[in-house]
Amino acid sequence: MGAFDDLMAFQRETEALAQVMGRLGWDQETVMPKGAAQQRADEMGALESVLHARRTDPRVGAWLAAVEEGALDPAGRAQLRHIRRSHARATKLPDRLSAEIARVTSRAQGIWAEARAADDVAHFLPILTEVVRLKREEASALAEGGSLYDALLDDYEPGATAAGLAAMFDRMRPRLVELRERIMGSGRAPAALSGHFPTEGQMVLAREVASHFGYDWRHGRLDRSVHPFTSGSGTDVRITTRVDEAEPLGCLYSTLHEVGHGAYEQGIEPSYRLTPLGAGVSMGVHESQSRIYENQLGRSRAFCGWLHGRMTEIFGSSGAPDPDAFYAAVNRVHSGFIRTEADEVHYNLHIMLRFDLERDLIAGRLEVADLEEAWNARFLADFGLAVDRPSNGVLQDVHWSVGLFGYFPTYTLGNVYAGCLYTALRAAVPALDDDLARGHAEPATAWLAAQVQRHGGLYLPAETIERACGFAPHEGPLMDYLDAKFGALYDL
Amino acid sequence: MGAFDDLMAFQRETEALAQVMGRLGWDQETVMPKGAAQQRADEMGALESVLHARRTDPRVGAWLAAVEEGALDPAGRAQLRHIRRSHARATKLPDRLSAEIARVTSRAQGIWAEARAADDVAHFLPILTEVVRLKREEASALAEGGSLYDALLDDYEPGATAAGLAAMFDRMRPRLVELRERIMGSGRAPAALSGHFPTEGQMVLAREVASHFGYDWRHGRLDRSVHPFTSGSGTDVRITTRVDEAEPLGCLYSTLHEVGHGAYEQGIEPSYRLTPLGAGVSMGVHESQSRIYENQLGRSRAFCGWLHGRMTEIFGSSGAPDPDAFYAAVNRVHSGFIRTEADEVHYNLHIMLRFDLERDLIAGRLEVADLEEAWNARFLADFGLAVDRPSNGVLQDVHWSVGLFGYFPTYTLGNVYAGCLYTALRAAVPALDDDLARGHAEPATAWLAAQVQRHGGLYLPAETIERACGFAPHEGPLMDYLDAKFGALYDL
Repeated sequence: MGAFDDLMAFQRETEALAQVMGRLGWDQETVMPKGAAQQRADEMGALESVLHARRTDPRVGAWLAAVEEGALDPAGRAQLRHIRRSHARATKLPDRLSAEIARVTSRAQGIWAEARAADDVAHFLPILTEVVRLKREEASALAEGGSLYDALLDDYEPGATAAGLAAMFDRMRPRLVELRERIMGSGRAPAALSGHFPTEGQMVLAREVASHFGYDWRHGRLDRSVHPFTSGSGTDVRITTRVDEAEPLGCLYSTLHEVGHGAYEQGIEPSYRLTPLGAGVSMGVHESQSRIYENQLGRSRAFCGWLHGRMTEIFGSSGAPDPDAFYAAVNRVHSGFIRTEADEVHYNLHIMLRFDLERDLIAGRLEVADLEEAWNARFLADFGLAVDRPSNGVLQDVHWSVGLFGYFPTYTLGNVYAGCLYTALRAAVPALDDDLARGHAEPATAWLAAQVQRHGGLYLPAETIERACGFAPHEGPLMDYLDAKFGALYDL
Repeated sequence: MGAFDDLMAFQRETEALAQVMGRLGWDQETVMPKGAAQQRADEMGALESVLHARRTDPRVGAWLAAVEEGALDPAGRAQLRHIRRSHARATKLPDRLSAEIARVTSRAQGIWAEARAADDVAHFLPILTEVVRLKREEASALAEGGSLYDALLDDYEPGATAAGLAAMFDRMRPRLVELRERIMGSGRAPAALSGHFPTEGQMVLAREVASHFGYDWRHGRLDRSVHPFTSGSGTDVRITTRVDEAEPLGCLYSTLHEVGHGAYEQGIEPSYRLTPLGAGVSMGVHESQSRIYENQLGRSRAFCGWLHGRMTEIFGSSGAPDPDAFYAAVNRVHSGFIRTEADEVHYNLHIMLRFDLERDLIAGRLEVADLEEAWNARFLADFGLAVDRPSNGVLQDVHWSVGLFGYFPTYTLGNVYAGCLYTALRAAVPALDDDLARGHAEPATAWLAAQVQRHGGLYLPAETIERACGFAPHEGPLMDYLDAKFGALYDL
């Protein structure tokens, strides 16, 4: 067992340093003094060099070659699978390319922010062309003759393929477009919430709801940041939210979303801490947890009934006249340009648009120069809306500027997984609606912890979901859930 | 310039990683979830391994040998001096010894905390014996035949020697003992403050006072922790304070003390950031800044007058009936066992006791088994008090458990330096008392920034003070200041 033990000891130190890197990111977004940005970049750059050297360390290859895999238990073999995979990715990429991608994407993110603020696509396209070129080069190095897009996708969702996702999305898209059109033609237009909701009350409610969904405060904390996020694995998993005093749902559902991500990390088998198994297995499975907490549980009629009452206690009014109106407001379907503000019906259409465009970019079928036109045409087709300005269209997301190609589809995959898990969860926890009507989700989240979260990286992503559900994941449950929920809400 | 540039580039990355280590410590004491302690230890252990490897990296020795020192400017030569010194220290210590000291002191700190809580000296002595043995071994490796204690002292105060400090302390001690006895025999016993001082108001006042003393919020922040401290160099220098609602002076003067440390780090020449020159030059000079902010400025009659008024505005009462009574309460001399609660008269006597005992321990003139008896005898002689229990005596400080031998005397050296700087400051800023009477210290702290702080590690510690004062530092100004201040207060 010498080689395996040496490999794992080395890996644990690498994972510990990766946690430190994550902590620096958390610090930067929550508590860092404003004038420390350049120094922080220097600090993170120095640590990134250390991590890069460890990830490409030739000893890892030697240990991997020397391990006797037959002598390992299933967890040990799963550790090896993760280490092999990331070592192969790291060593296939020339150092020069990694450094160039880091440098160019860092610059591209700044230029993207300027372009978005000025609604100036032309300002962004030259550097985006650079990013696409580099990501194609990266994909070529990784793919070794296979699909370029799959090589990128694999970084976020091991085992998934663009062809598989495209087939599934092609089944979902017409149903979603049709559902959207029926809702828009229903003549119903529920009112949004109105009122003033002081920050302090919103944070009290956020903490209370996080507790009721099983978030573990001994191993986490909740802060505010511009964009909500979850940071860390193991015994230090922090979440953030944002507050708008005119609109309380952003704080609440951002919190629930991040509680899903955070509870996943907190729920992993403790002996996996600081190993490759000690983190969520993929972006898709991660998103399944955040989405089921946020949507299937948090936006349910039962939970909304409790929430209406609790918000009335805290703020004097929930912002809606009664629980049904509150539930309708929370689940209001409305046309809009922005993905991050989309409802459950529109959200996946946003993703499919991006997935198709980025596949074409990476395949070389679409030039960056033609991207805006392609975006706007597709948006009109799927959403029935003409994009009015680039910041509402092709410039809205940071992802492409920082080189995240292959990431978008994991959002919809997460929704699909959440749909599957919700079906299994309802069967496993028959009193679910009674719990939610009392504002509590602990029995549901305990089931998710036992069936999904505790496994961390032990199984492949789709296998993780299949083991929890008892069936191979597919889009059916999500689509049926959306049809039923919004059919009832809009009396279709 | 090839070797020097390579050396400095390497050094900058090392300093950046050292800043990250400091940030982890800050996080641990302020915001870390309670259940994350073991993981944090793993993270810091992994980063410490990286730092140790860099500090002993053979390339540093090769670069040092190849540098043409004659081609460098004074700052470049000072950088070399620091790098040579720490490289020599790092390479003289066998890796085995460094690792053993880290392991044993980590355990010793836990045992010390248990022993102090249980007032059980016997529980602590075996591991302290281990620590002393290892520190003597470390000192032998470093001293290469010279004084063991000086080799340890040099880590905190380059250029200082035990013999020099002992001679100075021997001049100070009889005067301090005599002053103490005259105060105690004066028949005057000013009342302490009384009242209730809500946390929120104390923090408002702490932030206001920090601003008035020139603390730079763009490059810092103030939080609460169990023990106040300052963390970080360059553009991210954070301070903490503590709050007791029955006793407002702890929060206020801890803040001022840490503002002194923090302003020093913030005030260093920006081009020194992330280099050996970009941090306070020694513990003694650091303490001179914290002490002059806290004592000579913050506990002055002029500033106390303003403070009385401001506290009356915030809390309804300063806790004293008038400014003179408030000033007397702030500077109340009282016998007590605990160093960290000591007034300006008693404080240095605490230090001298520890200095003499730790010198004897390191020299082998005192056995750990006899330490408590020696402590208690000396305490009775200097303070006129019999120690009632170990937690009020030999077990009160964490320092020895974590291997900090040679650190204590820098506290008194800092006080001595502060006395010298105060003399020069009064001459340079004639309106000092007028400023302080309006609650402002910016002109004074600007003088300290220009004369001391901006130089960072450019000069040796004593040289730094001498350049600012125009005379070689000695204990005279501090002793005269104490005689005058407390002579007036106690009508001696």
